[in-house]
Amino acid sequence: MIGQTPAPPYYAVIFSSQRRKADPAYDQAAEHMVDLARQQPGFLGVESARGADGFGITVSYWSSEAAIVAWKQHAEHRAIRERGRSDWYQHFHTRVSKVERAYSFGD
Amino acid sequence: MIGQTPAPPYYAVIFSSQRRKADPAYDQAAEHMVDLARQQPGFLGVESARGADGFGITVSYWSSEAAIVAWKQHAEHRAIRERGRSDWYQHFHTRVSKVERAYSFGD
Repeated sequence: MIGQTPAPPYYAVIFSSQRRKADPAYDQAAEHMVDLARQQPGFLGVESARGADGFGITVSYWSSEAAIVAWKQHAEHRAIRERGRSDWYQHFHTRVSKVERAYSFGD
Repeated sequence: MIGQTPAPPYYAVIFSSQRRKADPAYDQAAEHMVDLARQQPGFLGVESARGADGFGITVSYWSSEAAIVAWKQHAEHRAIRERGRSDWYQHFHTRVSKVERAYSFGD
């Protein structure tokens, strides 16, 4: 899914992860987290892709670092992250970055 | 694939794209570009995922903005980007960002 974002600067959280085996509960939780993120102040958009090998990248876009910290501390988000570590992910990396320039092609 | 990156700060190029139909020539070109990127000064790593719907995200990591600019100007990379626009991508976004903090879980 493509997030339409404003002109830089803004922030990107790059989350790359290796899933363990497929689990419908994961898909449900991931969808719910995106719905919840959309309701947070400063949320700008999200893009996500996962291949058949279970490796995926989700990038969420935010207007400020404060918005990212607030989302990180959200109670429901914290709880689901615990479940991610115990049940769903073999490993993941989270990187918080500041988008300095952006360009696009196509529709 | 997972790129092992050093402690921040460093740079991330977030490339999200919607593929047109599958094309073996694309896969070959993508693989070649990764091989070529690995040889560039300042290259730190790359992660890539594409779902069955043809939407994908590739994030490459670099030690400096100068390294990103040099790679962007690489002749073979320029030529393949032309082909990407004409043949392979319906749309894409490129975002250059500075990674400010990072954390990991698992192996």
